Amino acid sequence: MPEAASAQPVRATVGDSEFDRDTALTLREPGVHDIDLSAGWTIINAVNGGYLLAVLGRALGETLPHRDPFSISAHYLTASQPGPAVVRTDVVRAGRTLSTGQASLFQRDEDGREVERIRVLASYGDLDALPDDVRTTAEPPALPPMDQCFGPQDGPAPVDGSSAITDRLMIKLDPATLGWALGAPSGKGEMRAWFGLADGRDADPLSLLLAVDALPPTAFELGLSGWVPTVELTVHVRARPAPGPLRISVTTRNLAGGFLEEDAEVWDSADRLVAQSRQLARVRLG
Amino acid sequence: MPEAASAQPVRATVGDSEFDRDTALTLREPGVHDIDLSAGWTIINAVNGGYLLAVLGRALGETLPHRDPFSISAHYLTASQPGPAVVRTDVVRAGRTLSTGQASLFQRDEDGREVERIRVLASYGDLDALPDDVRTTAEPPALPPMDQCFGPQDGPAPVDGSSAITDRLMIKLDPATLGWALGAPSGKGEMRAWFGLADGRDADPLSLLLAVDALPPTAFELGLSGWVPTVELTVHVRARPAPGPLRISVTTRNLAGGFLEEDAEVWDSADRLVAQSRQLARVRLG
Repeated sequence: MPEAASAQPVRATVGDSEFDRDTALTLREPGVHDIDLSAGWTIINAVNGGYLLAVLGRALGETLPHRDPFSISAHYLTASQPGPAVVRTDVVRAGRTLSTGQASLFQRDEDGREVERIRVLASYGDLDALPDDVRTTAEPPALPPMDQCFGPQDGPAPVDGSSAITDRLMIKLDPATLGWALGAPSGKGEMRAWFGLADGRDADPLSLLLAVDALPPTAFELGLSGWVPTVELTVHVRARPAPGPLRISVTTRNLAGGFLEEDAEVWDSADRLVAQSRQLARVRLG
Repeated sequence: MPEAASAQPVRATVGDSEFDRDTALTLREPGVHDIDLSAGWTIINAVNGGYLLAVLGRALGETLPHRDPFSISAHYLTASQPGPAVVRTDVVRAGRTLSTGQASLFQRDEDGREVERIRVLASYGDLDALPDDVRTTAEPPALPPMDQCFGPQDGPAPVDGSSAITDRLMIKLDPATLGWALGAPSGKGEMRAWFGLADGRDADPLSLLLAVDALPPTAFELGLSGWVPTVELTVHVRARPAPGPLRISVTTRNLAGGFLEEDAEVWDSADRLVAQSRQLARVRLG
């Protein structure tokens, strides 16, 4: 049906999408990459930590002999701002099946001094070289069909400040984890959603680094509000995601002493657990 | 009852124990620490990764303005050997409530070349400065009483090679997770145990870095055998542990592509979740 076909919106592809353009780095010299951090991935008053991790992850993928982040650990030092930034990368060890690298993102302050924003340590490999053996006991999150889930565009913006990132993402939250948006948080530290990029670009290992930090904070469902700054975020990419929407579940089991962990699982359309992450974040106790 | 009292074995204390002596570093110059890695913490053919993390964590605690590891991420590069090693530490950022540091452990190969064994990125703070607020939904692991659990001394050594570390640790495994030792692994990726140091030293934030990597691999209960080398291990220390034995549960939910994650929770005698960790490890698929 040519009509139907021509009625299809043009879907962005891996390599030609907002996400790819906004994570693109220019190699100034070996180990030094320039980038202009996009304002399109800001939320409240900050550049999204997952977008920043994807930028650092991409820089490492272009530096190391292996291209896929198997385990990437980021420690967030100071709040990044949209605008020029420099990523410095180092090869720590180049092995046969795994290589390890380090990267740091810097920006200049008002006085022109370089300030380090994030430091990352990561082990890279080749996901396509892994055996197919899968013995996962984890179950995909139970999510209602996408048309029974809700996104930011379905209601008033639940947070003050910028929500630019919501225009770049397709997020459809499970109504069971939406109490906070209706003023009735469940008290359970859970957030579940369908996830994709708004322009239709399919997921790849780099966009998984964005996905694990893209949902509203579980703290909202615990009755807390405001910014939940990430101290440290580690992501394990376990498989190359199949095309189609992702399902993400984020769980917090231990809110204590003003800190909480957020454990994220990302499942692809083929029911494969493609990424696991954990972050330590700081909360303002109400 | 003086008899009973005098019959008590002398318990080691924090600061004066095998663990403290074997993690002690000598400051050669600012940022350069010498240590002789003890052979007492080897298992199979390797120095235990938790002991090594404790060494690096101690070096960072002696370098940074804050002493407690809040989040410490280690990437394991090459296998460490007992004997001389050098730990190099750097202050990445010194903040008011959190500081971030980096550390690397080096040893010399046969040709006298320095080889990096482990690189660590960590954020430190002061556990005693945290508010008491606890809203944990996590439950302590259900463990039988200690006298109904079993340690290495209760049976033949289940692994080939060195088991020196078992003399330094008090580990009493839940019989429900001991099938592997009897040739009947449960197929569930779970390991649960009571844990302490054999000389009776109480736990502190540093010994928690050892605790999270001290149990037999969950891979054994999944029917796999042999060495399960850690690629990356991140530990969140969430509270200063109370005196007395710890309870540890380790869970693997995703064994795929020759890798698995091990999630550990450490609970203290006051039913407080004192540490959470996750590691990515490589397995030999049977």
